[in-house]
Amino acid sequence: MSEKQLAGEKAVEFIQDGMIVGLGTGSTADFATRKIGERIHNGLNIKAVATSTATAQLATALNIPIVDLNEVDKIDVTIDGADEVDVTYTGIKGGGGALFFEKMVASISQKNIWVVDASKYVEQIGKFPLPVEVSPFVYAHIYNQFQDKGMKPQMRKQQKKYYLTDSGNYIIDLHLNTIKESKEMASWLNAIPGVITHGLFINTVDLLVIGNGSTTRIMENQRHK
Amino acid sequence: MSEKQLAGEKAVEFIQDGMIVGLGTGSTADFATRKIGERIHNGLNIKAVATSTATAQLATALNIPIVDLNEVDKIDVTIDGADEVDVTYTGIKGGGGALFFEKMVASISQKNIWVVDASKYVEQIGKFPLPVEVSPFVYAHIYNQFQDKGMKPQMRKQQKKYYLTDSGNYIIDLHLNTIKESKEMASWLNAIPGVITHGLFINTVDLLVIGNGSTTRIMENQRHK
Repeated sequence: MSEKQLAGEKAVEFIQDGMIVGLGTGSTADFATRKIGERIHNGLNIKAVATSTATAQLATALNIPIVDLNEVDKIDVTIDGADEVDVTYTGIKGGGGALFFEKMVASISQKNIWVVDASKYVEQIGKFPLPVEVSPFVYAHIYNQFQDKGMKPQMRKQQKKYYLTDSGNYIIDLHLNTIKESKEMASWLNAIPGVITHGLFINTVDLLVIGNGSTTRIMENQRHK
Repeated sequence: MSEKQLAGEKAVEFIQDGMIVGLGTGSTADFATRKIGERIHNGLNIKAVATSTATAQLATALNIPIVDLNEVDKIDVTIDGADEVDVTYTGIKGGGGALFFEKMVASISQKNIWVVDASKYVEQIGKFPLPVEVSPFVYAHIYNQFQDKGMKPQMRKQQKKYYLTDSGNYIIDLHLNTIKESKEMASWLNAIPGVITHGLFINTVDLLVIGNGSTTRIMENQRHK
């Protein structure tokens, strides 16, 4: 079994009957979603909120009941992936393009579990390009601003066109190599008119489930809550 | 002539041949747009960027050439209205629902001129409800958060449905009565996942043109640039 599958399936042990569950997006999160589908087939009773149209489709195919985020008071547990996470539990997400919905779902979740393979757990984030979701109305100016600051921006593309998020926005990937002042960078990005969100998830994750060889390693973010 | 018209038309004196001009949204900004149409008819040569579909339609009807914000390097002058502006040049915008595009256009403008009638110029902002543009995906949770903090939120409606912005989002109006710590409030709002933007425009305006009785009063923001 791959590290991704090991991590994804391990996290599902934290799901209990009656819960509202957030379903992440991406290959590792998909293993969790499939395992939840299996448990539903065996009698588990939950409702789920999806972080992308792709995940909603997968969940529906697995008979996982999907509800609207606005219809629930809170989410009990969300299981999601991450593109990188460091020793301070700061993560980069959004390689799959679902960062905006993932961030909103995470903000409503009592407990956030991230499932990753061992290669994603790093000393310091930044090797993975940082995604910034921007309004198509002003994207070129934000791109230029990043360019001027030496942040090596790249418009994300799909089939030669600009990639479109589920909210109809573009993504600019910043090839920073290393991110030291993540809080300052998050505030700076948040304040740029036209930036919808970015892939920095600071002190969001509660429990990190790392697929490590043929086993899993679980780490708890003690500073959180 | 009304104070709105006096202010709107006065501001157009700052427009010169060859400029890229930002066109604001709302009744006072419309007077500026109409005056620009008149000058175009008399030979003025400019290009313009609109802050809403409504303004783009008005401009097109007046033969003002409209270009995409991403096609221009910068905007020379933007003329826009404001719902309130105080003695520190902090403003509330978004009563007309175009706050997101207005903020993006303002951020690309070399010079921002606001046109208001005398009633909009106040000691301290906050009597006018502060608009917050939010993603429909998570609006109910953001509404509840505002409610819990005593911020008197109200979902903006149009014909009994939630009002939809040009970007397909909802607006929550906060009835705060007074806003003292506007910078802190702006940062706090910017950091909430699902908040697209808000109506606080801090140190944005360069020149304030106030319609005052039968004349206009012009005030320059000295702290700016």
